[in-house]
Amino acid sequence: MRLISYRRNKQESVGVMVDDARFIDVPGADSALPPNLRRILEMRHGLDRVRAVARGKHPQIAIEEIEFLPVILEPHAIWALALNFKKHIEETGLTTSREHPQIFMRMPASVVGHRQPLLCPPTQLSDTYDYEGELAVVIGRGGRHIPVERAIDHVAGYACFNEGSVREFQSHNRQFGLGKNFEQSGSFGPWLMTADEFGDPAKHEVKTRLNGHVRQDSPLSDMLFNVPQIVHYLSTGYAVRAGDVICCGTPGALPRRPGDPDHGKELKKVAGIPASGVQMKPGDTVEVEITGLGVLRNPVVADQKVEYRPA
Amino acid sequence: MRLISYRRNKQESVGVMVDDARFIDVPGADSALPPNLRRILEMRHGLDRVRAVARGKHPQIAIEEIEFLPVILEPHAIWALALNFKKHIEETGLTTSREHPQIFMRMPASVVGHRQPLLCPPTQLSDTYDYEGELAVVIGRGGRHIPVERAIDHVAGYACFNEGSVREFQSHNRQFGLGKNFEQSGSFGPWLMTADEFGDPAKHEVKTRLNGHVRQDSPLSDMLFNVPQIVHYLSTGYAVRAGDVICCGTPGALPRRPGDPDHGKELKKVAGIPASGVQMKPGDTVEVEITGLGVLRNPVVADQKVEYRPA
Repeated sequence: MRLISYRRNKQESVGVMVDDARFIDVPGADSALPPNLRRILEMRHGLDRVRAVARGKHPQIAIEEIEFLPVILEPHAIWALALNFKKHIEETGLTTSREHPQIFMRMPASVVGHRQPLLCPPTQLSDTYDYEGELAVVIGRGGRHIPVERAIDHVAGYACFNEGSVREFQSHNRQFGLGKNFEQSGSFGPWLMTADEFGDPAKHEVKTRLNGHVRQDSPLSDMLFNVPQIVHYLSTGYAVRAGDVICCGTPGALPRRPGDPDHGKELKKVAGIPASGVQMKPGDTVEVEITGLGVLRNPVVADQKVEYRPA
Repeated sequence: MRLISYRRNKQESVGVMVDDARFIDVPGADSALPPNLRRILEMRHGLDRVRAVARGKHPQIAIEEIEFLPVILEPHAIWALALNFKKHIEETGLTTSREHPQIFMRMPASVVGHRQPLLCPPTQLSDTYDYEGELAVVIGRGGRHIPVERAIDHVAGYACFNEGSVREFQSHNRQFGLGKNFEQSGSFGPWLMTADEFGDPAKHEVKTRLNGHVRQDSPLSDMLFNVPQIVHYLSTGYAVRAGDVICCGTPGALPRRPGDPDHGKELKKVAGIPASGVQMKPGDTVEVEITGLGVLRNPVVADQKVEYRPA
């Protein structure tokens, strides 16, 4: 089952995809179900109830009529992993613990949904605004001290994530901080694919394309810490909650090949981070695709200029 | 004006302190004002309206009748600074950029209010659960690219913050991640003191006491980056929002003196962090006091044992 968070006529709601173009509005099909995916996940058997009300119904709405929103609008936490793909570790030359995952946080304001524009910072602030295609895990059932072998029971499903990063700011100091939290710099979608349909993440692959060129392409089995290990680790300190998001880290950039726009150019490095060779610029289209899950596609537009704007 | 977020009879609300023991319930005095401080700050002239309705009213409720909550319950962001006091930088021997603040994030689930218990992790997980007394800034008016000289216009007020840290987890890898986000490991209160009454932060001092012993004591003027510089920096990448919280970093621990429980003992270091010499343990009481602002006091209790607990 594929669930979307969306906006239509200024109303936020949740839908169940029936095919690739049309869906059923969940609270429209059963008014006892809330128009918010986190709240559905917080309900006992929330996904089962959605499945039951959607069964056999005809799709009512086409995706062209709506605005996609981030899969979970206001999660309690968006955890993210740095240096979790063996190839990315080699490429950056950075060291990371092999015992414990490297964790930082993103906040919801830094994330948009499928098809929503990503904001590229003005060149005055940065010229290395970088894509990072990732698998996002969405927690279904919360818990504390979750054993590795029970971790998948706590996963509601998966989505694609573009963990867009402003490398100059990420390398301003030791903690990534602001560089991972620029306004509308990342994306999350297109939908939540439930765990039963997606199956074992390690059997899938992630690809990132910039203007149609494949820039990242990796099996998810290349992760240093796999999904159950990450869920277990986080639950040691924190009671994971329904709707929580975990971005599992990005693989390395592909070596630049003839035909790539950066072929033959010197690799840009910002504080030791190779920044994938090619960055996102206004006018670009970036896609993160995970096999068996779908394609998260976003246009990149210029953020407003550097000018004081009180709210 | 001092504003509290509180719970009483399972209802969350906002109050204005009249003296140190009693307050006026804000939505009770004007039902057009919401029972949520972030939402009041999001309103145009929200604080002015609170001030107007509270004027001349008699206090109705004693603080003994309520449970204090974190000053802002669900902010869009809790930004925090590492190594922002000159003395703390010397003490840790760690290096940090002098050009850009070092930023990481905490999430709301890691924070409790005044008088609420802080959870000390079981010794099996950590024996360096450490206090960090800090000034917390609460944003009133949002904005982007805020000049340093306009930054204070965007500050609604201030509170005390105990940025409790689980040192072992903080040093598991390069990013602080989980070690700064343990369940109920930090506290935020007792109230929001509005900026007009608090005045210039640099003229104030922060003290942390563990069981009555002063463990940290520093002028806020010792900050490497001051409040306007921090607000300016964050607004470069992110449109700061009403209710956002910024924890300004912690000063060094005092040298241990005769009478201190750790006097004469070797200083505990976890991955190079001196961990303040004395940690928080179940049964302790920890206080963060900022002059002109108040005392944030929390009992420390043992977190539950390491045992699988599905939600």
